[in-house]
Amino acid sequence: MFTNSDVSMQNKLKIINDPVHGFIRIPHEILFDIIEHPYFQRLRRIGQTGLLNLIFPGATHTRFHHALGAMHLMFTALETLKQKGVSISPEEEKGAMLAILMHDIGHGPFSHALECMLMDDWHHENLSLLLMNRLNDEFNGELSCAIEMFQGKYHRKFFNQLISSQLDVDRLDYLKRDSFFTGVSEGSINTQRIISMMNVCDEGELVIDAKGVYSIENFLTARMFMYWQVYYHKTSALAEFILVKILERAKYLVSQGIDLPAGDNLKYFLYREKSAATDEDVRRFTQLDDNDVIQAMKSWQNAEDKILSYWCTCVIQRNLPKTIISSHPFDTEFIKEKVKNTNDFFGIDNGDELVHEIKRKLLPYNTQKQPIYLLQKNGRKIRLEESEDQLLSGLMVNKTIRYILTFPRDI
Amino acid sequence: MFTNSDVSMQNKLKIINDPVHGFIRIPHEILFDIIEHPYFQRLRRIGQTGLLNLIFPGATHTRFHHALGAMHLMFTALETLKQKGVSISPEEEKGAMLAILMHDIGHGPFSHALECMLMDDWHHENLSLLLMNRLNDEFNGELSCAIEMFQGKYHRKFFNQLISSQLDVDRLDYLKRDSFFTGVSEGSINTQRIISMMNVCDEGELVIDAKGVYSIENFLTARMFMYWQVYYHKTSALAEFILVKILERAKYLVSQGIDLPAGDNLKYFLYREKSAATDEDVRRFTQLDDNDVIQAMKSWQNAEDKILSYWCTCVIQRNLPKTIISSHPFDTEFIKEKVKNTNDFFGIDNGDELVHEIKRKLLPYNTQKQPIYLLQKNGRKIRLEESEDQLLSGLMVNKTIRYILTFPRDI
Amino acid sequence: MFTNSDVSMQNKLKIINDPVHGFIRIPHEILFDIIEHPYFQRLRRIGQTGLLNLIFPGATHTRFHHALGAMHLMFTALETLKQKGVSISPEEEKGAMLAILMHDIGHGPFSHALECMLMDDWHHENLSLLLMNRLNDEFNGELSCAIEMFQGKYHRKFFNQLISSQLDVDRLDYLKRDSFFTGVSEGSINTQRIISMMNVCDEGELVIDAKGVYSIENFLTARMFMYWQVYYHKTSALAEFILVKILERAKYLVSQGIDLPAGDNLKYFLYREKSAATDEDVRRFTQLDDNDVIQAMKSWQNAEDKILSYWCTCVIQRNLPKTIISSHPFDTEFIKEKVKNTNDFFGIDNGDELVHEIKRKLLPYNTQKQPIYLLQKNGRKIRLEESEDQLLSGLMVNKTIRYILTFPRDI
Amino acid sequence: MFTNSDVSMQNKLKIINDPVHGFIRIPHEILFDIIEHPYFQRLRRIGQTGLLNLIFPGATHTRFHHALGAMHLMFTALETLKQKGVSISPEEEKGAMLAILMHDIGHGPFSHALECMLMDDWHHENLSLLLMNRLNDEFNGELSCAIEMFQGKYHRKFFNQLISSQLDVDRLDYLKRDSFFTGVSEGSINTQRIISMMNVCDEGELVIDAKGVYSIENFLTARMFMYWQVYYHKTSALAEFILVKILERAKYLVSQGIDLPAGDNLKYFLYREKSAATDEDVRRFTQLDDNDVIQAMKSWQNAEDKILSYWCTCVIQRNLPKTIISSHPFDTEFIKEKVKNTNDFFGIDNGDELVHEIKRKLLPYNTQKQPIYLLQKNGRKIRLEESEDQLLSGLMVNKTIRYILTFPRDI
Repeated sequence: MFTNSDVSMQNKLKIINDPVHGFIRIPHEILFDIIEHPYFQRLRRIGQTGLLNLIFPGATHTRFHHALGAMHLMFTALETLKQKGVSISPEEEKGAMLAILMHDIGHGPFSHALECMLMDDWHHENLSLLLMNRLNDEFNGELSCAIEMFQGKYHRKFFNQLISSQLDVDRLDYLKRDSFFTGVSEGSINTQRIISMMNVCDEGELVIDAKGVYSIENFLTARMFMYWQVYYHKTSALAEFILVKILERAKYLVSQGIDLPAGDNLKYFLYREKSAATDEDVRRFTQLDDNDVIQAMKSWQNAEDKILSYWCTCVIQRNLPKTIISSHPFDTEFIKEKVKNTNDFFGIDNGDELVHEIKRKLLPYNTQKQPIYLLQKNGRKIRLEESEDQLLSGLMVNKTIRYILTFPRDI
Repeated sequence: MFTNSDVSMQNKLKIINDPVHGFIRIPHEILFDIIEHPYFQRLRRIGQTGLLNLIFPGATHTRFHHALGAMHLMFTALETLKQKGVSISPEEEKGAMLAILMHDIGHGPFSHALECMLMDDWHHENLSLLLMNRLNDEFNGELSCAIEMFQGKYHRKFFNQLISSQLDVDRLDYLKRDSFFTGVSEGSINTQRIISMMNVCDEGELVIDAKGVYSIENFLTARMFMYWQVYYHKTSALAEFILVKILERAKYLVSQGIDLPAGDNLKYFLYREKSAATDEDVRRFTQLDDNDVIQAMKSWQNAEDKILSYWCTCVIQRNLPKTIISSHPFDTEFIKEKVKNTNDFFGIDNGDELVHEIKRKLLPYNTQKQPIYLLQKNGRKIRLEESEDQLLSGLMVNKTIRYILTFPRDI
Repeated sequence: MFTNSDVSMQNKLKIINDPVHGFIRIPHEILFDIIEHPYFQRLRRIGQTGLLNLIFPGATHTRFHHALGAMHLMFTALETLKQKGVSISPEEEKGAMLAILMHDIGHGPFSHALECMLMDDWHHENLSLLLMNRLNDEFNGELSCAIEMFQGKYHRKFFNQLISSQLDVDRLDYLKRDSFFTGVSEGSINTQRIISMMNVCDEGELVIDAKGVYSIENFLTARMFMYWQVYYHKTSALAEFILVKILERAKYLVSQGIDLPAGDNLKYFLYREKSAATDEDVRRFTQLDDNDVIQAMKSWQNAEDKILSYWCTCVIQRNLPKTIISSHPFDTEFIKEKVKNTNDFFGIDNGDELVHEIKRKLLPYNTQKQPIYLLQKNGRKIRLEESEDQLLSGLMVNKTIRYILTFPRDI
Repeated sequence: MFTNSDVSMQNKLKIINDPVHGFIRIPHEILFDIIEHPYFQRLRRIGQTGLLNLIFPGATHTRFHHALGAMHLMFTALETLKQKGVSISPEEEKGAMLAILMHDIGHGPFSHALECMLMDDWHHENLSLLLMNRLNDEFNGELSCAIEMFQGKYHRKFFNQLISSQLDVDRLDYLKRDSFFTGVSEGSINTQRIISMMNVCDEGELVIDAKGVYSIENFLTARMFMYWQVYYHKTSALAEFILVKILERAKYLVSQGIDLPAGDNLKYFLYREKSAATDEDVRRFTQLDDNDVIQAMKSWQNAEDKILSYWCTCVIQRNLPKTIISSHPFDTEFIKEKVKNTNDFFGIDNGDELVHEIKRKLLPYNTQKQPIYLLQKNGRKIRLEESEDQLLSGLMVNKTIRYILTFPRDI
């Protein structure tokens, strides 16, 4: 039997099992304290990929897990840089790990799209920053360095870039994690290989050792496959779209004086009018998670409003509308016809609410915004797409666009 | 652009991505129809391993996915047997795949423990059978063969055994899947190897080719590691226990005339009194899922009853009580002291509600109930533990017991 | 103890462990007999990737293993096609599996380049065919169908294409296997996913279901990464080149009357003069493997001829020459200077033997020779690069060329 | 084009691809120099698992690769210990990595058994030590610390234990590597998990954190499965046995004045008589590798001596003798009968040379010699088998013995 004094330690998770990266160690006390905070624990109830599990049933992983994974990759990246002779203070290490751990702390339920719905023009980055500042007060300023890095203002640029750039650890984790949980092997990347090629150039910027060129190109193609096979898959795109439609419709109905059942906190946001964020808004928001939205959708299946009940049934019973895709915008006459059929079929006159064109565009490699640099053996950095060894990067600078038209089945 | 006629097919999932087994094909129309049914879609919202994700954050996978995985393993097992010369009719194949697909269809939210709470002595197997029979009516008797197999009554025993025995595909899937999603690699089994060693002996029973002896022993040790590292991990055991306590307490409070907020369907079961299952019970039950229980716990954090609010806060904020373990029962004096401390700490007199001894016992290999047989080269079958080649099976026939004592932190 | 009668079966391998594909089953007796034949057993002593293990130490896998793996993928591909309704007779299945099993049976020691060295203009495909015909005599014509398929003459084209085309199982196996053993994860392909997307169109040609477009594009990029990171890696290219130089030099020296130690069979080929292949040639050839060449190189390290001893020491002690690469041909003046330095350094006048420009070119996707077709939902086939969904195929139709210059270190 | 000055660095491998552990970094110059030394390069031509590839065709990996892998695990283990607060000087790190890198440097061709054959009572550990001392002279004493550790004489015991004990990195690497290349998944261990549980107790001994108990038990069972499925598999045992028989027979024939073709160096050892090792012995030995033995066996297939040619043909054409196994010694009458049949069949009178009983015994966990210790939370160490949490360790302290009888087919 353990003695009592041992017991006090026993629930402190020092090591977390992660099927993606193996053991995740938590090397600093403050990281552990943030993880235990209710703000962070809430992320357990927010899925990483929204309704994607309607298409890929394995994709039930959470933002909580992603944040831990990204923190682990940050640790690995910093270890690698240290071994290459980059000096990194314990304070900086702690800061970088905290920043990435908290980067999604302001995420609302489901998709990014939804958060604007609830809080108007509030981006989750803004909310993350707001919540980080509150935590910083609570932890007596221990998070200041992390917040500076999160805002991209730290004087050593590579820290900011590890947190947010085309090769940041956020992206490395979510691509690998989403590929892992969806089972879409085309999107699998080897984070160990990519990180082991990271370096810092004289100007203090994050670069990639020249010999890692194909690991990076592999990352870019994998990312592209994930976008088209998973994130922009027409049914995924549709599911995300429906969520927005549901909340939009619910807010509209409420504004018309119609009462809709919902948990207290969700209800609060349905009724909330445009204004600056208050303390009460924040308190409510940090109680909100995917469950509130799912519960609401479950009961709204029985709503009197046909549009709302239609969309909610689509999601809960996975009885999704039709979708057709094209690389060109759809013909407006064709759309009009679909709307007419919808009106006839449902006996409504707002069938245009159920017929929509969704657009998705992707630029696999953005050379303008934070280009990727290779560090040559001679110590000079060059842009990835200018390397003599590059094979695909130069080709991946063009946008691809897809149009998706959705309308009810059987019309 | 796709033509309209293509569209009608496009949402029919014929292939599902599974990170555990790769692509899962759905070879028969009826399987697809069952998967689309709301009874089955509900399983998307029921976690495979309850609150285990509080300890293993990757374990967010669902019964929906597990059922598909088990169906896939059944397909693989039948293909293997056919290649070894066992004759299997298309009807039998369909039946076996349907039976395993639906084996968990009666599962309630969270743990097995909870289902008895809601529906008294209703086991999920009974509910599964009840729902299968309803579906059978709906599908004009097409499920009769499946139901016979599910009940273990089919005349060719190996079908029944593939559905339920010490080596059934249910177990093969959940062990592999739970090991995969928790990241506990010690519990990983190689289902392909085990299935490729399956055979049918003259008497029509499921057996394992003699050369597969170590694959089976590896399966038994992996299973044992999963039990002690995952399912019976003291914090996992605790989490499951707390859920039962919460529902128990909620039912008690309701019986005392106290009103508790909850979704309609969960409320129905909180107020329901012991009686035979009615149609309304079934209708309500098939609307219930993990979300109802989580939403309730979220609001019950603020309940006036200190016991209920204590347990709910434990779960939602992952602020779990202490646990200590032992291979012997705990001293009653020691327990009494903990109860007294609890009463003092909370200023209550029912502190015994928060101090409990939980017991877990495991028999790694049960030679009584459905022993595992090896098929020798001479065509005779012998029990696994009697094989000259066995190394561990003979040692794994003894029970291990662990006692876990839980009580509030800081007392 | 096993009885004697069991014993007669026990060494018959029915299942072979393969770390790449898992268990490989040998479903037909004749396959087993071919595997046991000394012609095929010789492939155990012929590496799949020549001297690549000088750069990637894991790449010690053999042609023997590759042939088994390709046979396994053929089996899987045929099973998939059958499940999609393509009728395939047992005779055809056996033929296709035999053809791919034996496709490399005429492979000489080390690289393709070397085989022409030993046997003038003999390609290994020719030798494979010659040996297949001999085996066919031995097995009373049982291999006729296989030989027809191997020659691309079978009337159902998809069989020929599974054996040799841009998506044949030979390629699928070697890419996955070479990626696996080298550890170059960028080259990893998911053969299961690709094969599950195979189909046969009305004209009897091998096609890919339209939804598999990204699996194919992933295959094309993986293949490209393997070429530039592995097969055409400058040191790999160099190693292959050195082997040719060694044999060339040895033949030259022998022709000048200089005696070189070597095993009987290798010696035979060093002395053999250009002529049509005789029975004795074939007898000798089927005794030859990598060991003969390695043993020779080991002793030729001490040869009097400086060129020969230089190259052999390079390989045996892995003391490789320098290489520099460029996307343009090297300047002839620069090369001349290197030759001069070499002459000075070694005190020889044939330094040009040690300075060479090696050229490698790659066309990732050849749309002329056996284009890849997608089968659309409407039953029509289109070229991969013409698909609306394709992202990279259209970009991969251009050749890339690299020039590698090699010369001794320290000059 | 790279400039000339870059070129001088470009062949220096700083990172090696390993399919088992991922990238292997070479953090110290001296490690790189040892790897480049001909003594170490010779290990490229010595298989890790002898003739095991006759049974598991993937098992073609080399001692070269294993040594690199073990060096990598040493690096990882030391990093882990440092993160737990164990102080390790750069000198100690270098020493430990060198020691494990060179631990097999004295390995002769093929099995351990063979080395005694060639050099009488010379164990490869002795030869490794001898060669290390030579290298130490060459490198001006830089290897002294490594040699001390290799001999188990270093004053901080955990270094010695990481190099040689029941949980040393040698074992961790070869188990994982052999499981990986054979494809026997039952033997797979998770080295990352085991190493992350390593610690050093107050007395300076290597211990395992208590919570790692199941990772260790999993390691012990995996090891046991590897022994019985792979190393002691009856055909593996046979193959190793045949090699000894071949060398024994060759030495005997040579001692009888019969000339046998062989490479110079192998011949030297066939003729060598028992005596202390000379400089010439060492010079010759360091030229010897698997190729010499394979080449000899290839030509000895045609030897006049029937015993020698029989055994050699068995190996080269994989036409292996029969084997039967038992847990009891074989009946001597039964063996006599087999000898008689052999004599009759081959028309010889020394048939007893072809009929043998081979014995293999295994103790899965040796509690006497270097027991495994767990470090409890209270800082005290206990033996693994005494832990309250252990499940299997206590059961794995018993020996298992298998007897294998081999004799020619068809007698």
